[in-house]
Amino acid sequence: MKFARFIAEGAIRAGVVSGEVIREIEGDMFAAWDYTGNVFRCDGVSFVAPLVPRHVIGIGANYVAAREQLPAELPDIPVFFFKPSSSVIGPEADIVIPNGISEVKFESELAVVIGKEAKQVSEDDVWAYIFGYTVANDVTAPQFFHPDGHWTVGKSFDTFTPLGPVIETELDPRSVAVKARVNGEEKQNSPTELMIISISKMISYLSYVMTLQPGDVILTGSPVGAEFVGPGTVIECEVDGIGTLRNTFVAAKAPAVSTQQR
Amino acid sequence: MKFARFIAEGAIRAGVVSGEVIREIEGDMFAAWDYTGNVFRCDGVSFVAPLVPRHVIGIGANYVAAREQLPAELPDIPVFFFKPSSSVIGPEADIVIPNGISEVKFESELAVVIGKEAKQVSEDDVWAYIFGYTVANDVTAPQFFHPDGHWTVGKSFDTFTPLGPVIETELDPRSVAVKARVNGEEKQNSPTELMIISISKMISYLSYVMTLQPGDVILTGSPVGAEFVGPGTVIECEVDGIGTLRNTFVAAKAPAVSTQQR
Repeated sequence: MKFARFIAEGAIRAGVVSGEVIREIEGDMFAAWDYTGNVFRCDGVSFVAPLVPRHVIGIGANYVAAREQLPAELPDIPVFFFKPSSSVIGPEADIVIPNGISEVKFESELAVVIGKEAKQVSEDDVWAYIFGYTVANDVTAPQFFHPDGHWTVGKSFDTFTPLGPVIETELDPRSVAVKARVNGEEKQNSPTELMIISISKMISYLSYVMTLQPGDVILTGSPVGAEFVGPGTVIECEVDGIGTLRNTFVAAKAPAVSTQQR
Repeated sequence: MKFARFIAEGAIRAGVVSGEVIREIEGDMFAAWDYTGNVFRCDGVSFVAPLVPRHVIGIGANYVAAREQLPAELPDIPVFFFKPSSSVIGPEADIVIPNGISEVKFESELAVVIGKEAKQVSEDDVWAYIFGYTVANDVTAPQFFHPDGHWTVGKSFDTFTPLGPVIETELDPRSVAVKARVNGEEKQNSPTELMIISISKMISYLSYVMTLQPGDVILTGSPVGAEFVGPGTVIECEVDGIGTLRNTFVAAKAPAVSTQQR
């Protein structure tokens, strides 16, 4: 099933996409929900992010370019980072390049949506805790990475985490392609088999650190090919079986961030 | 006023502490609330964390040992990090040392609770967006810091963010002392004047990166004196005017986290 959130008749609603239409639902997507009976045409509504995440957790540098580059031994400690939920936007919304810099990086990613509390879950068992999958763009301004390695500021700006268009609950994420197109030109296209730390391994690992909860979203890393782009660029992130997440980069109107300003 | 959350008669409740009693409230602490009329004796209830944070944002290495060490120039990019809300516990709860390591660090801190949406707020104006202040212990396992500088795993374990006992709304945070005692012995005691990046500066900076929301909690850094401690240690974190946050470190029963395990 494809779960989505959308604006129709002035209100944010949730629904299940079925072909050309979206059937409105009410209740808790992760627990108990029902159809309201309202049906909307997909082309008559505006999709927003398919959920408001509880946590957004990313993993860094998680793809190789080709299968033979997969390391024999995994790193002891994966590079995980958090992005704030305030950075989440939906399809077609503008990605704002912060003032003071002229370009940022896109990163197309497969995102896992947790559906059930997960604490100390083995690799084999993680699948029962996953609600579904969506597409993410882990927008990044490395100009704001701290020289000591902290990525927080460069990952956290408002609009830096487009999600959508839907959460697909029936995907096998182990063999789909993650793609990105910049103004129509393909820049990323890798199968998820090129992940260094697999989805089951990263979720199991995380569940031994923190109790994962419904609504936690895990960005599973971006294939080779991410680039810097500037205002006016149209980015389409796509994952087979889920859909295409399209956004446009724009320049900020706000003043630049600085520790020197008042 | 001192806002708190507590367990009484089997339910988690919110209230305002007044001397020896706590007056129960209902509604949204940040917006509209009312007294229910129920009054409990403080010594007859169990305090829990005074809020469930939306985000927990920390700042690294933010205190000098003495005033003359305050730098003339501030770093361009502060070291910010996120901690998951799943790591939050309240007073008297156990802090669990992860399996595989024998000790972790305590860090006593003054924590700011945001009460109003804050986007691009100047330093002079931040005070209007602050709801109040609580005490935090930013428990840290540097053994899980990534060699490239990422702190996420080492900061994110369940129970690693004790908060409480109350949120004090009437504190002037610019001249209070932040203290820690280990088994009764003082280990940290510094006035907030020894912060490198001031509270107003760090909140203003953050508000230019991300839209802060009610319930966001900012840990403002820990004074010199934080140490490694092992199971059985009692830690008391204290901030003048707020109160004392006491917890005990215990060893984990769960297996160790590893990318190698199944």
